[in-house]
Amino acid sequence: MTDTEKMLSDIDDNLDQAIAKLLDLIAIPSISSDPENAADIRRAAEWLFHELSLIGFESEIIETAGHPVVLARSGRTGKAGRLLFYGHYDVQPVGDREQWSHAPFSPELVEEDGKKRFYGRGASDSKSQLWSFIEALRAWKAVNGDFPTEIVILLEGEEESGSASLPAFIDAYREALACDVAFICDAEMWSPTEPAITTRLKGLVHERVTVATPNPDLHSGLFGAVAANPIRILGSILSGLHDDTGRITIEGFYDGVEDIPPGLRTDWQELSRQTALFDEVDRAGGIIEEGYTALEAMWGRPTVDINGITGGNQGPGERSVLPATATARLSFRLAPGQDPDRVRKRFRSHVEARVPQGCSVSFHGEGGSSAVALSEDSPHLAAASRGLEIEWQKPTRLIGSGGAIPLVQLFNDMLGAECVVIGFILSGDAIHAPDEHYDVERVRRGARSWVHILKELEKLQKSAAAKA
Amino acid sequence: MTDTEKMLSDIDDNLDQAIAKLLDLIAIPSISSDPENAADIRRAAEWLFHELSLIGFESEIIETAGHPVVLARSGRTGKAGRLLFYGHYDVQPVGDREQWSHAPFSPELVEEDGKKRFYGRGASDSKSQLWSFIEALRAWKAVNGDFPTEIVILLEGEEESGSASLPAFIDAYREALACDVAFICDAEMWSPTEPAITTRLKGLVHERVTVATPNPDLHSGLFGAVAANPIRILGSILSGLHDDTGRITIEGFYDGVEDIPPGLRTDWQELSRQTALFDEVDRAGGIIEEGYTALEAMWGRPTVDINGITGGNQGPGERSVLPATATARLSFRLAPGQDPDRVRKRFRSHVEARVPQGCSVSFHGEGGSSAVALSEDSPHLAAASRGLEIEWQKPTRLIGSGGAIPLVQLFNDMLGAECVVIGFILSGDAIHAPDEHYDVERVRRGARSWVHILKELEKLQKSAAAKA
Repeated sequence: MTDTEKMLSDIDDNLDQAIAKLLDLIAIPSISSDPENAADIRRAAEWLFHELSLIGFESEIIETAGHPVVLARSGRTGKAGRLLFYGHYDVQPVGDREQWSHAPFSPELVEEDGKKRFYGRGASDSKSQLWSFIEALRAWKAVNGDFPTEIVILLEGEEESGSASLPAFIDAYREALACDVAFICDAEMWSPTEPAITTRLKGLVHERVTVATPNPDLHSGLFGAVAANPIRILGSILSGLHDDTGRITIEGFYDGVEDIPPGLRTDWQELSRQTALFDEVDRAGGIIEEGYTALEAMWGRPTVDINGITGGNQGPGERSVLPATATARLSFRLAPGQDPDRVRKRFRSHVEARVPQGCSVSFHGEGGSSAVALSEDSPHLAAASRGLEIEWQKPTRLIGSGGAIPLVQLFNDMLGAECVVIGFILSGDAIHAPDEHYDVERVRRGARSWVHILKELEKLQKSAAAKA
Repeated sequence: MTDTEKMLSDIDDNLDQAIAKLLDLIAIPSISSDPENAADIRRAAEWLFHELSLIGFESEIIETAGHPVVLARSGRTGKAGRLLFYGHYDVQPVGDREQWSHAPFSPELVEEDGKKRFYGRGASDSKSQLWSFIEALRAWKAVNGDFPTEIVILLEGEEESGSASLPAFIDAYREALACDVAFICDAEMWSPTEPAITTRLKGLVHERVTVATPNPDLHSGLFGAVAANPIRILGSILSGLHDDTGRITIEGFYDGVEDIPPGLRTDWQELSRQTALFDEVDRAGGIIEEGYTALEAMWGRPTVDINGITGGNQGPGERSVLPATATARLSFRLAPGQDPDRVRKRFRSHVEARVPQGCSVSFHGEGGSSAVALSEDSPHLAAASRGLEIEWQKPTRLIGSGGAIPLVQLFNDMLGAECVVIGFILSGDAIHAPDEHYDVERVRRGARSWVHILKELEKLQKSAAAKA
């Protein structure tokens, strides 16, 4: 038995225990955007601190202006090279609980479609992701007595709410975080049987906009015929954000947007043809920018989404109210070349120009992230790609994502570190939605994938050392 | 001292006690649209039952399929003629409590602008209205030992939530409710110094519409570029309900609408010129149907209002969700000639035709009321008008209202009773809005007005009897 075979066996043998622990972690409602869950966030950080300490990491819980970061270090191993693993332990809010048919924070194993599944907020995004690489490192240490090289693990608690504290943290810990390559473990596979590495991530700008009339709430029967209705005004602005070709109408929105490189377009068009993604997600009623395939629009073109709207009567019964205000929440997904601040400014000007005189508009939002285009031909990426192919026995696809991982941009910009984005999330996992779920087999194969990736990286380092 | 002077003095002398009791009534949160307040509704009904019994009425609390009705009868007085007084003791929901600077259900007297005011939900709409005529009847009985004629008082508990149980109630109590004239005491004055009788009321149709995509909630970053957004779809439908001239675009919406009679148009155009209404309510950003003055649009033209909208993220933080559904609540205010069911049907067809294929729409709502045009030259109306003029020393205006009082239509249709709609609400009272309020002086003058009106009716009956 090779040491790799031993590690894979160890992962298989330890699976029940690994899953039991993972379910404990998912049971902690570590929602980062709701102040009511601050204690849960801390509990999750402490839980991870404890588990990382158990397998031999020197762990710390580091305070930030927001939620704490868990930072774990293997210490010097005597081998050249330092790897960084990034994951996040915070989760999205639950949303409408009525839409869940499983409790969001009481995961248990369920047999479904021949799979052992578990449901829960964070089950896929991203607790199973971080747990898979921790489990691989545990097995490596158990079999080899040490880690393959020096390893730093950074677990964030604010990814789902904008990573506001991350820049200051990275700035303060530049030295501890410096690495040869950073693995960002919060991404998708290409299909349930095909691995992927994500090399293109969109930028993200969240914005909240409130339209206010000059009046307080009024009786709509009395004044509806003459006084401004903020819901109508807001609805009109929102419905005008796209033209008939699916292009965004905000002046200057596309300024600086870089075209998707021709080679990548060809690959993505090919993937668009073979994807089974739209067996699960129906595009009826959606507006795709004219001239682009679905995957090009999702991975390479800037978009605006309306994530929420609220105005007037929210109660159980009817109410003849003409509300004073209406609020919408939007998010912009940026392509390379777009600047978050400029997009925000352009949007605000667009709205201001469309609010009738006498009414007013206010905005809430700041910061944001730019899109990232990662290297597609580095030795680290090639090694990771090979590792994935050994486990899955299928080619590793280079894909994009409509999602943002602010950290990737920060690592790129602040540390100059090469980033490789890998994960095992599937589009059917219902992440950010009711009944988010994951399955036992993917935890197992995810952990095994990381063993293979680490092994390929070890080979790479050895051959580099031999050449030197 | 005439008996009228005695009654007016009695009202003045009893004012402190009358106000103290009224504040007790306002303190009961009798919100009819929220099932959580069912016990409060009952408490308010019992409170009124008790007060009406105290002044000599035979009172009953009558169960309905919804909230109870309080029915009080003076019994036979030996005099010809029976009068009915209608009021409602239920109130609108509070809405956003944060927008109130006074507690909505803890009224107390406040000195402001030289007036003794009290704040509370229902302070103006409509607890002070019903209390003013009860106080007048109390004074009449106290001074004269009996009521001017046989009197029936009907106090409803569902006016603010659609009066669903009223038709069945009226049907079951036709005999008890039969009357020569019904006074509907839930309406506005023309100005703080000028009385009014409302002869035109709009019809009302409430409708809730939910647009659903074929998907569950999705991650907006991943799928926003291609999958349907129900908020965008709904926003687009809502913003298209009016054209540039303020006309409603629903096909057939104006079918059968009766023109405002030319004489009334002239009067309303004159009132439009002199009204101070828009010193308080700003029309900036509103859309008034082209070709009509503000009061004509408010009182005589059909409209549609958006009363509420909800979709996607409602939480404190940002969330990249592409929601599965979005819901809006609308109300249609109908002009004479429009049928509520037909308007509802036309609206539903309009929306269905605009929801993209693959998405779906569902509706919630039923019933509704037609507009009412009351007689403008009956002897009862003339007597009431004179009574108001004696108290206010200003001409009584015949006005319209954008509001609906379903009972007026029901009384017209089911009992064939003549209705006279009188009240002392002012547009600045913030009814249906935060910080609803009323003032002591208006309670006093309202009660005095009713004494004068009853006196004029007594004269009318005497002269009719003399002629017979």
